[in-house]
Amino acid sequence: MELPEKLLIQPIKSFHPPGRRLMGPGPSDIHPRVLEALSRPTVGHLDPTFINMMDEVKRLVQYAYQTTNTLSMVVSAPGSAGMETCFVNLVEPGDQVIVCRNGVFGSRMIENVRRCGGAPIVVDTEWGRPVDPNQLEEALKASPSVSIVAFVHAETSTGVCSDAKVLSGLAKQYGCLSIVDAVTSLGGIPVLVDDWGIDAIYSGSQKCLSATPGLSPVSFSKRATRKIKKRKTPVQSWFLDLNLVMQYWGTGSQSRSYHHTAPVHALYCIHEALLMLQEEGLDSSWVRHQEQHERLREGLQALGFRYLVEPQFRLPQLNAVFLPEGIQESDLRQKLLHKYNLEVGGGLGDFAGKIWRIGLMGHTAHPDKVDYLLEVLHKELS
Amino acid sequence: MELPEKLLIQPIKSFHPPGRRLMGPGPSDIHPRVLEALSRPTVGHLDPTFINMMDEVKRLVQYAYQTTNTLSMVVSAPGSAGMETCFVNLVEPGDQVIVCRNGVFGSRMIENVRRCGGAPIVVDTEWGRPVDPNQLEEALKASPSVSIVAFVHAETSTGVCSDAKVLSGLAKQYGCLSIVDAVTSLGGIPVLVDDWGIDAIYSGSQKCLSATPGLSPVSFSKRATRKIKKRKTPVQSWFLDLNLVMQYWGTGSQSRSYHHTAPVHALYCIHEALLMLQEEGLDSSWVRHQEQHERLREGLQALGFRYLVEPQFRLPQLNAVFLPEGIQESDLRQKLLHKYNLEVGGGLGDFAGKIWRIGLMGHTAHPDKVDYLLEVLHKELS
Repeated sequence: MELPEKLLIQPIKSFHPPGRRLMGPGPSDIHPRVLEALSRPTVGHLDPTFINMMDEVKRLVQYAYQTTNTLSMVVSAPGSAGMETCFVNLVEPGDQVIVCRNGVFGSRMIENVRRCGGAPIVVDTEWGRPVDPNQLEEALKASPSVSIVAFVHAETSTGVCSDAKVLSGLAKQYGCLSIVDAVTSLGGIPVLVDDWGIDAIYSGSQKCLSATPGLSPVSFSKRATRKIKKRKTPVQSWFLDLNLVMQYWGTGSQSRSYHHTAPVHALYCIHEALLMLQEEGLDSSWVRHQEQHERLREGLQALGFRYLVEPQFRLPQLNAVFLPEGIQESDLRQKLLHKYNLEVGGGLGDFAGKIWRIGLMGHTAHPDKVDYLLEVLHKELS
Repeated sequence: MELPEKLLIQPIKSFHPPGRRLMGPGPSDIHPRVLEALSRPTVGHLDPTFINMMDEVKRLVQYAYQTTNTLSMVVSAPGSAGMETCFVNLVEPGDQVIVCRNGVFGSRMIENVRRCGGAPIVVDTEWGRPVDPNQLEEALKASPSVSIVAFVHAETSTGVCSDAKVLSGLAKQYGCLSIVDAVTSLGGIPVLVDDWGIDAIYSGSQKCLSATPGLSPVSFSKRATRKIKKRKTPVQSWFLDLNLVMQYWGTGSQSRSYHHTAPVHALYCIHEALLMLQEEGLDSSWVRHQEQHERLREGLQALGFRYLVEPQFRLPQLNAVFLPEGIQESDLRQKLLHKYNLEVGGGLGDFAGKIWRIGLMGHTAHPDKVDYLLEVLHKELS
């Protein structure tokens, strides 16, 4: 048995990744304790010890989101699949959905609504600005049959933070469910699901939680769960159908039934990462992100970088900045990667080639990393 | 910031899994070299070293499937999402799809067709028997507007092997595309995608490839790729839309664009596992699975176990057996798990409570594991 000749030209060897420092928009650096958890021995996905660990993951997700929602768990795929889980379960064909868009991930939400057969109503805000609650309220008044409002809490493409409390409050006030993208916010800034009355929320494992990429913690309110159970049409995705997923993750005392094979090691990893977050305490984590943001900001501004976002709307964990005059962003970014093993992110969408996105997420939000980046920039720019 | 009291009753600690021997229907045991690859340092999902590793993964997937298909890659989610990738991309609303069903996973295919708006035509065969090519041909003759034939190569619920070469040949003969489930077959028995003319195929990382659960290697022929590119309707899943996924995995010389954040560590792991398969050679791996199957079979039959499947249709890697008279399957299975750290699988669907499914997959297919199981059974049954 031989592979066709052309596929065998270059021999393949084990992959040994370089030791990067990850200061882009995610994945972030992973604490050694969390990385080690990945390679613990495999157990079956229906093993009683594993089921017990999954129950703990649910409780840790509840803590991270500050919610008592029973339907809190981790989707076995990346944040984009977490987004899709919210839309395919909550949107039925014909449903009108307001999507507030102020960056790349709002566009992705609109695409999700369309593919579910829903009718998106788009509330556009300039990129780099937070979603405007007045605009949302106008749209809600103008479209009385809207049933869902979706928005991104922390736009990873621009580093802007929208007021999730006010926006989800408006949704509720007008009888709508809210779907919130917390991919970049969870763990880095407050995300208070119960206090803010959010109905469906998703995040990613690889941002401020600093776990292995590929998982998406989600949570659904009782109102959202009721809507899912009362659907008239089946959920179009079998893999993401929460009516089935719930039977595996369990939402009470019932026994588990097989749905898909869980990503066993990735779940070990997020268990450990969420546990470290709980040990540190959410408050302390938020303070740490803010402090490192300030440390970075001072250094960057002294070097001539300018922030895209106004101070009061900036995400501490995602610093979107214009480079000093005359610097080619791509050349410098490549030099940082290849000469210093240091990854920062380029712009996305409208801001490609124009800005950097410097992440201070999870385990990356520590003074030694901030100082190293500033030192390197100082060397290269002076 | 405090978690509601009821969520804090039991303190949570790091999870240290017991050291099981995995002899169920998957996940299988993972070689230490492959397990170690999981916890190598994180790099960004657009890092040039990572992109290069993804290219190697593509070539290794081509080797495993014995294909030159350019569209060969790994879906960032478990085998069930690999299945869904095939159906949502190839089935358009109104398409007639023949699904051959002889176990649990055939039913799941039917469900997938329905959720894509397709019309499934079911060819049923008794569980434990291979799909009957004559029945398929009759169905093809009776339904001239069918455009896709789907079947399971290796039914994980019963341990039966269907003749994928003949079935996909029939599909082609009648102008249909074939979708093949190779979750349990890939790496354990021949799966010759080009020789057999298969159009779309998916597998799982956690069976005979012995990598971490949560990934699905897939491959699509030129005919299938053409159909995907010519679709009249958008693929209903954004996350699994191959038109988008291709832009990230690359299908030629074009540069990569961001689609979703790849499960970085899981891809390190499957790279290493596929590399080990290539080093061993597919032939040798197939022989090893067959030899261990024979070793196990002799021992089991001597102890009074009876096989569900006739000898010529048995999968070496999945041994579905009735227990000796008077033995409660569940009690003994629990005893193996708790007293010996040894996992075997119970029955699924119609066979729940009636059979065991003993896996000899990938790194589990070694004489020391077979002998250990037989020794334990001998002790407990005599």
